[in-house]
Amino acid sequence: MSTDQTATPSPGPASLLPDTLRAALDRAGVDALWVSSPENIRYLSGFTSGRDARLLLSAQPTLYTDARYTVQAQEESRFPSFIARPPATLAHAAPAVEGLRVGFEADHLTVAELERLRAHWQAGERPATLVSTSRVIDTLRQVKTPDEVARVRAAQALADEAFAAVRPFIAAGVRESDVAARLEGFMRERGAGSAFGITVASGPRGAMPHGTASARVIGNDELVTVDFGALLDGYHSDMTRTVAVGNPSEELRRLYRAVLEAEEAAVAAVRPGATGGELDAVARDLLGAHGLAEAFAHSLGHGVGLAVHEGPSLRAASADVLVPGMIVTVEPGVYVPGVGGVRIEDLILVTEDGHEVLSRSAKELL
Amino acid sequence: MSTDQTATPSPGPASLLPDTLRAALDRAGVDALWVSSPENIRYLSGFTSGRDARLLLSAQPTLYTDARYTVQAQEESRFPSFIARPPATLAHAAPAVEGLRVGFEADHLTVAELERLRAHWQAGERPATLVSTSRVIDTLRQVKTPDEVARVRAAQALADEAFAAVRPFIAAGVRESDVAARLEGFMRERGAGSAFGITVASGPRGAMPHGTASARVIGNDELVTVDFGALLDGYHSDMTRTVAVGNPSEELRRLYRAVLEAEEAAVAAVRPGATGGELDAVARDLLGAHGLAEAFAHSLGHGVGLAVHEGPSLRAASADVLVPGMIVTVEPGVYVPGVGGVRIEDLILVTEDGHEVLSRSAKELL
Repeated sequence: MSTDQTATPSPGPASLLPDTLRAALDRAGVDALWVSSPENIRYLSGFTSGRDARLLLSAQPTLYTDARYTVQAQEESRFPSFIARPPATLAHAAPAVEGLRVGFEADHLTVAELERLRAHWQAGERPATLVSTSRVIDTLRQVKTPDEVARVRAAQALADEAFAAVRPFIAAGVRESDVAARLEGFMRERGAGSAFGITVASGPRGAMPHGTASARVIGNDELVTVDFGALLDGYHSDMTRTVAVGNPSEELRRLYRAVLEAEEAAVAAVRPGATGGELDAVARDLLGAHGLAEAFAHSLGHGVGLAVHEGPSLRAASADVLVPGMIVTVEPGVYVPGVGGVRIEDLILVTEDGHEVLSRSAKELL
Repeated sequence: MSTDQTATPSPGPASLLPDTLRAALDRAGVDALWVSSPENIRYLSGFTSGRDARLLLSAQPTLYTDARYTVQAQEESRFPSFIARPPATLAHAAPAVEGLRVGFEADHLTVAELERLRAHWQAGERPATLVSTSRVIDTLRQVKTPDEVARVRAAQALADEAFAAVRPFIAAGVRESDVAARLEGFMRERGAGSAFGITVASGPRGAMPHGTASARVIGNDELVTVDFGALLDGYHSDMTRTVAVGNPSEELRRLYRAVLEAEEAAVAAVRPGATGGELDAVARDLLGAHGLAEAFAHSLGHGVGLAVHEGPSLRAASADVLVPGMIVTVEPGVYVPGVGGVRIEDLILVTEDGHEVLSRSAKELL
């Protein structure tokens, strides 16, 4: 509620904006960008509570957040911060955006906030021009720096350790939620969080692609799909394994072998220059040959980083082109209501000469 | 990716919309509402993965979600569902909204999605009229049903148990993150999740109101602020306790006693008819008398339910009026950079004749 500006030491006329960001704004045809995506705010400024912040990315960038974060903003943000709540934040920014073309993130900004930007920035004599933009920063985030790759690698290594520790515990008589609790507990003890609600889907619940762990007790001769990730230093991992308890039916084994074949083929095809749509087709065509095209009810994969779901998109008809430094999931699955399901997912780094599989946990052979 | 419509059995001309919802749409001046808030989607339909869904609330409501959730939508949603991805969802809805006034949730809908609604619903001969609305469903959610009160009560009871179990472990030499891990582990074992990132802020970190548990080791003669909640059956709890390790300085004790006095006075003032602004002033005036007005860097409290932060707002100048069935937090705090901080928070049910404190954990007397 209180306002307090962190002074920029001798700001001077020089731009504080790195060249890559300046170029991104130029490509978008704007002088400045009002950043409202929490992940983009963190990526640009280092401030970790982006949900309660905004960033004016301009020649003199300013982080806006409220007095709950005064100390945290000083410690974390690489840009000067102004401590206030909306609409005082918008009033403070108004002089800085006079006469400028200011982009907003149409995929993240709410209609109500756009109305507030208009009220504060277009009422004066030199109104700002508000420009709808899409994925200006998100696109930069798709290609990870070596430091970012190291963070995702560390998150995945921790998840692999957690899976190795918990795998022997996945057995008939155990509740799905207990499996999830052990995975989460292991990651917590190592200083990490869970990247998302952990899926543990056993038996017929395997037909729910996003079957968050329930109180169901795992039965004998079932498949159990476990989809989880670690969240470490702001970066996510994402991996799925489907494991057998006892001796699943031949029908379930057939589903498993088809998904494994599709998954391995799609992983083998990951390389610079491949499009998301091509990779999706590799898996989808193979599953189609097994009569399972309809059962593959989602896309092949997605980028992973500060968000657990980000670009590039590995979905049918996606024209996103892979380049070195991208990190993507490859996760075909089949879901048969009343029977069960299978999903196998690896986390893949695109390298100069192909790819590296970051997820190391063993896969069942059924 | 596949499309599959769950048929409405003999839909007929009768409205499927309950009277309370019909009345809410009438008050907003719309024939239908395009619901995009995940919590509102869950509240209205029962479907728990609202982030990947939309709801057309009209005489014949339809839940839209994708093929990952085919089984889940059948199990959970009280309205018929249509399984597709955007823009197929918008194309399907187009005939149903022809010529209607359709509200959208301006506080939740992105600018990009509004542009897609316009493209699909205003291109034909009988275009829909899109109407900006605010808090149509959110306002209904503020007053809890007895079943909802029972769920929040159960979440808070579990959090109280967790705190009692973990309190003896909060001592010099223990890492903040280990305290958080124990709280989270306790809740997980009971089938609940953590309502939000747990705050464990010790010593000087107490000056960060939202100091998520770090690797810092708790020292002797410090205060430790612990802010956490349980997430159980979709409903949240929220409570903060500040505890002493060893013998904190008289300065810290003075801060603690001031916050406790302000907290107890504000709780005592909770009753039907009080406004959020009046309650905030009770605490703020008392802290001001101790010279701590500037150090109280946030608002007094907020509603709690399907979202951990929802209406009503207990902030300066809030005109929100309390009515029986609301559940709110009362959480004054003071934050002194370089010294530390204190926050004390209770979860309060507004009753016919006053209030009931749902959070039962004991408070320190310093």
